[in-house]
Amino acid sequence: MLIIDCHGHYTTAPAAHQKFRDAQVARCKNADATLPQRPNVSDDEIRESIERNQLKLQRERGADITLFSPRASAMGHHIGDESVSQAWTELCNDLIKRVIDLYPENFVGVCQLPQSQGVPLEGSIRELERCVRELGFVGCNLNPDPSGGHWRSPPLTDRYWYPFYEKMVELDVPAMIHVSASCNANFHATGAHYINADTTAFMQFIEGDLFRDFPTLRFVIPHGGGAVPYHWGRYRGLADMLKRPALDQHVMRNVFFDTCVYHQPGIDLLVEVIDIDNIVFGSEMVGAVRGIDPQTGHYFDDTKRYIDGLDIPEVDKRRIFELNARRIYPRLDQQLKARGL
Amino acid sequence: MLIIDCHGHYTTAPAAHQKFRDAQVARCKNADATLPQRPNVSDDEIRESIERNQLKLQRERGADITLFSPRASAMGHHIGDESVSQAWTELCNDLIKRVIDLYPENFVGVCQLPQSQGVPLEGSIRELERCVRELGFVGCNLNPDPSGGHWRSPPLTDRYWYPFYEKMVELDVPAMIHVSASCNANFHATGAHYINADTTAFMQFIEGDLFRDFPTLRFVIPHGGGAVPYHWGRYRGLADMLKRPALDQHVMRNVFFDTCVYHQPGIDLLVEVIDIDNIVFGSEMVGAVRGIDPQTGHYFDDTKRYIDGLDIPEVDKRRIFELNARRIYPRLDQQLKARGL
Repeated sequence: MLIIDCHGHYTTAPAAHQKFRDAQVARCKNADATLPQRPNVSDDEIRESIERNQLKLQRERGADITLFSPRASAMGHHIGDESVSQAWTELCNDLIKRVIDLYPENFVGVCQLPQSQGVPLEGSIRELERCVRELGFVGCNLNPDPSGGHWRSPPLTDRYWYPFYEKMVELDVPAMIHVSASCNANFHATGAHYINADTTAFMQFIEGDLFRDFPTLRFVIPHGGGAVPYHWGRYRGLADMLKRPALDQHVMRNVFFDTCVYHQPGIDLLVEVIDIDNIVFGSEMVGAVRGIDPQTGHYFDDTKRYIDGLDIPEVDKRRIFELNARRIYPRLDQQLKARGL
Repeated sequence: MLIIDCHGHYTTAPAAHQKFRDAQVARCKNADATLPQRPNVSDDEIRESIERNQLKLQRERGADITLFSPRASAMGHHIGDESVSQAWTELCNDLIKRVIDLYPENFVGVCQLPQSQGVPLEGSIRELERCVRELGFVGCNLNPDPSGGHWRSPPLTDRYWYPFYEKMVELDVPAMIHVSASCNANFHATGAHYINADTTAFMQFIEGDLFRDFPTLRFVIPHGGGAVPYHWGRYRGLADMLKRPALDQHVMRNVFFDTCVYHQPGIDLLVEVIDIDNIVFGSEMVGAVRGIDPQTGHYFDDTKRYIDGLDIPEVDKRRIFELNARRIYPRLDQQLKARGL
């Protein structure tokens, strides 16, 4: 059995990478500031940042492969205009590609998109195509709120998003629905905005008919599906109240929840109410919650332990750890098969 | 043991009441429209609306008392200016008072507030005082987002809210944190906005130091605390990451979750991870989810069944059903004692 972590971000990128971004953000505020040059990041710097963090923890925790994307909270689609988002996104995705080239057995690429408030998704379509076809990435992170906590875009079921979905379907890649930082003081990024976005997206799918129009479109809703599994009765009941089809037909052929839920009771609930085929292993390690749980003595985000601790058949664990990811990300499956895995 | 449902709204108010609101909303859009008069609602109309719905279900499900407030989704603090909110709120609260006078054994009042975007809370302070001192209400519903899904107010820990909290402390009444309808197309009201607001408020309390400034301030976060119990490890871990005190000291002396979680596994999780003293029975019946769960044959919102189904000592069930509510709402306790209960 392979252990595939579908949810990892490069949260430990070398300082020069962030320095570029800082200069870019500064220039958004002051047009007289210098346009930053592409930073020089050495292979050794990348190796150090990965080997001391994600790779070390992958080995310690017993995972094999991480679907690796740029740091979500740093995507910052609300900053600057589309050209700013484009330059930053290309840099971030190219850096991910360098990680993968250095550690081809351990990481597989998932791309950031150059989304920007109020503009069409052509740039995101181009970048998705570049990352999938040229860099070998297998998925993307789609931000349902490029305004950063003000929620000014149309819902994910709106036709605004359709050209992007058409490209996803053509390339046969899924999207993880993942917001970035919040510039609304009401929403702490990882404590409120992330979880709210997960819940919001799911409810949008209930209200809409997106998967009638795109029967093969696939989304991973991270952080265990936000509030959804805990309120599964509410969502089943709302689908009924709103005269929508039952969720297993209407949404759950296309939507999957990861296991970024940082305690055993949450994972227990997830597996109790959600079909095993809709659960995909993820940890988002070295992410929102990096400490050790005093109640267990283990890292909060060592989510593999919670799956290991489940009283379910081994075959179901394999679906969570490996088989579902290979089904949801067919380009990952192809790469693994090419490696003889 | 008394069964006290802390979360009920008058979702079935007579048509003339809503007709007033419709005329009021129409006048917000067209200043030439007629200012509506207070509607004539007869006692018989109120009796019919209550006896066929909330009272019938109270009896069928075996609850004794409901803390009863105006319909949350109809508060509509984003509509019109403060004077519109004031007139509507007074009408709604007065109608609740009539229900209580007709059924003093079954309902106890909780008030709506005349909040409005971008204005101070003086009007809400006055209405809270009127409802508590003159009408005998025991709590209020505080809307953290009077913009209706745009989240334009400061966080609940901001000093903007402090004058209102001072009045809550003086009167010794808690607030349920409850948003209203959403005018942001991203957020379905009961499927996303409600749950997001619950999660958001909790995270604001973690970030802030509100209960250092108001040690006796009390909030009920409805809908089982939004996403919080499901992600309890995340919140414990975030408090640690943010160098905040442990949650039991920092937040959970002042914050309580109701049981409006519409399936057994959700309630099981709630009771597993949250201290019994922080859980208070609620159903929000005749509310967001009114159907029958095909998996159980019972109403989704018959949450008493889920508590009854828990394998916990009777004394703990009594805390959830009765004792916690009497502690959180001391004015309720006084009224019950005056009745010999």
